[in-house]
Amino acid sequence: MLFIMSAEIICVGTEMLLGDILNSNAQFLAQQLARLGIPHFYQTVVGDNPTRLKQVIEIACRRAQILIFTGGLGPTPDDLTCETIADFFGAPLVERPEIIEDISQKYAVRGRVMTPSNRKQALIPQGAEILPNFTGTAPGIIWQPQTGLTIFTFPGVPSEMHRMWEDTAVPYLKNQGWGKEIIYSRMLKFWGIAESALAEKVAAYLNMPNPTVAPYASKGEVKLRVSAQAANEAAAQDLIAPVEKQLQDIAGLDYYGADDDTLASVVGQLLLAAGQTLSVAESCTGGGLGQMLTEISGSSSYFWGGVISYDNSVKIGLLGVNPEDLAKFGAVSSIVAEQMAAGVRSRLGTTWGLSITGIAGPNGGTETKPVGLVYIGLAGPHEVKSFEYRFGTARGRSLIRHLSACTALDNLRRKLAA
Amino acid sequence: MLFIMSAEIICVGTEMLLGDILNSNAQFLAQQLARLGIPHFYQTVVGDNPTRLKQVIEIACRRAQILIFTGGLGPTPDDLTCETIADFFGAPLVERPEIIEDISQKYAVRGRVMTPSNRKQALIPQGAEILPNFTGTAPGIIWQPQTGLTIFTFPGVPSEMHRMWEDTAVPYLKNQGWGKEIIYSRMLKFWGIAESALAEKVAAYLNMPNPTVAPYASKGEVKLRVSAQAANEAAAQDLIAPVEKQLQDIAGLDYYGADDDTLASVVGQLLLAAGQTLSVAESCTGGGLGQMLTEISGSSSYFWGGVISYDNSVKIGLLGVNPEDLAKFGAVSSIVAEQMAAGVRSRLGTTWGLSITGIAGPNGGTETKPVGLVYIGLAGPHEVKSFEYRFGTARGRSLIRHLSACTALDNLRRKLAA
Repeated sequence: MLFIMSAEIICVGTEMLLGDILNSNAQFLAQQLARLGIPHFYQTVVGDNPTRLKQVIEIACRRAQILIFTGGLGPTPDDLTCETIADFFGAPLVERPEIIEDISQKYAVRGRVMTPSNRKQALIPQGAEILPNFTGTAPGIIWQPQTGLTIFTFPGVPSEMHRMWEDTAVPYLKNQGWGKEIIYSRMLKFWGIAESALAEKVAAYLNMPNPTVAPYASKGEVKLRVSAQAANEAAAQDLIAPVEKQLQDIAGLDYYGADDDTLASVVGQLLLAAGQTLSVAESCTGGGLGQMLTEISGSSSYFWGGVISYDNSVKIGLLGVNPEDLAKFGAVSSIVAEQMAAGVRSRLGTTWGLSITGIAGPNGGTETKPVGLVYIGLAGPHEVKSFEYRFGTARGRSLIRHLSACTALDNLRRKLAA
Repeated sequence: MLFIMSAEIICVGTEMLLGDILNSNAQFLAQQLARLGIPHFYQTVVGDNPTRLKQVIEIACRRAQILIFTGGLGPTPDDLTCETIADFFGAPLVERPEIIEDISQKYAVRGRVMTPSNRKQALIPQGAEILPNFTGTAPGIIWQPQTGLTIFTFPGVPSEMHRMWEDTAVPYLKNQGWGKEIIYSRMLKFWGIAESALAEKVAAYLNMPNPTVAPYASKGEVKLRVSAQAANEAAAQDLIAPVEKQLQDIAGLDYYGADDDTLASVVGQLLLAAGQTLSVAESCTGGGLGQMLTEISGSSSYFWGGVISYDNSVKIGLLGVNPEDLAKFGAVSSIVAEQMAAGVRSRLGTTWGLSITGIAGPNGGTETKPVGLVYIGLAGPHEVKSFEYRFGTARGRSLIRHLSACTALDNLRRKLAA
């Protein structure tokens, strides 16, 4: 097996074992390592326990050459990371007066006096460099306890860790020669196709070495991550661009955007480009479609508003839905979806009216109209159409509502893009 | 060293090594293990790589007796978790017709045809039980490949994993004798008070041994987690109840609910109890308030709907806001908030009308009306009032909108609870 120099992320803290906090530090460090082109293959979480932490260090030393620790640098007795690492490598701890000085000054600024427990934070392994903490009291270290092994420690507080990483770890690693090859990714996004179906369409791309293409799926959306390793971002983009283009061509209208694009932002761009406007009429989503549309800054240029017609009286009173059709076909029907879309379009005077009516559950389903049945209405300058969806009874209220709003946007997107 | 039976969480997916996603599955499983009193000391993240995954399994087998895997069960070629585990323990993979049947049916319901790549998901190690997936296509397994070792696999999609955990893993583990000494928690929720202020008020409770009380804060909400260790849930509740009561008394109206309660669900219960109804008029939140209210199943009993009045023409046309006041005071003003609330209340004929108008940013702020300035209007049977908030310019569009919707609900809650 080819030897690849790599890093390992080790997050220390019993709070993660209790599930009290999300381990956002691991994600941040993973992104940063990718940016610098430093491979990393493992992340480990361990509690504030010296015996277990030593076992983790022993394993990590065998499979990585850069160990990045977060957490356990604070002043309280359960913060043991630094002394445990020193103990593992048999190095004595040395009190560093510059750290004492730094902590005292920070306390003075906040009108507080340094406590004896803070002295512990000034103890670092002999031979280690101090990784200064500009925003908090806990410093980190950069240390080479043995040849070919570099250790970084960071506090667990994300804002402190981020700043220290940028200010000292990045320059240090670049100085060591990292960052010459970087990994750059584009996330391509698709709607209206299953992950397995897309994966089969693009099967030939899933085994390429550089760029690599990997599929993901969540909440109805399918993504392809295209990642290239190259000397810099521009070179990586050159590797990615032709593959991205081919993948888009294969997917056709199922492809809707990349990276920060959302269905709402793409619909917004299309409306802006056409100089058109939109209003919505929402029943089962209760405002979720409007919420998605207005999450985009500047959406007031094309989104005028809408009606949350949760109760039938609102469908009749504010949208002009025909009470006889409501009684005959029910609120969750193709004809009511169309009348809602046409009604909001004419009341608000927009180019398009988009509506949703459905059964989000868990109650309210029947044999003929099960939970998950959703109608989307789209009224435009030339016609009013509706679309029926069956999202299934088992997917839960929240997901059915999410899928309904996304699918409504997707219908308008396809209409505008066609 | 005392032998303690324990679990280990192993999350599989290159997307975590690239930092593309937050590992929320580890947090969920950590919380669940704590609830069942199952110790766990390590969490590992590894990519979709059979060689490295086998190394992780080897290490985990030495230090844990229950291995919980998430991720890598999908239909695409890089989903390798199940076959790699089978390979590690030398078990053949067997195609299970009931899985094929289940996937075909799910595809049929959604009007799609099962693809050949889905067949891979029906292969599970000989001797393993199927852990059914009610919401997605990837089933998991429960398997004892050797004496004293139990393996669970779950898909990486959080919603599917949660449901499968609750439905099958929890009963299985309880049947194995877990959950005898349990850790049970209540999460008390507060709105309208800062974390530090609440922590000071309840300082005496923060150092208790059993139950323990720990403060958390996120997105404007403050929480106190009260956790008790006891033989069963009832005994734990007995330990928690008096402390919970005292904490509620100290917090007064800043306390709004516990556990699954949300501001929207609490407002809903209060409206139901009073036999009253609600409508909303939303400008900067664009539907987010209605979305929150309708996230509650059964909300149609008290929530009738509303108007998303993003454009001023909708404020005038559908809500009856006075155009002269709009011109004179601006859309983001106390008087417009009041007219929006009164307008939606009278148009929809509800007991209460609740409105939001504000500047969510990042653009649109001025010297006198900065980003983060929000007015909430509340119209009721006896009066129309408004409330001004300044959420700050730096918190970002998404958080300002979230705080606006929550604060609107909180105002109504305090009115209804008073």
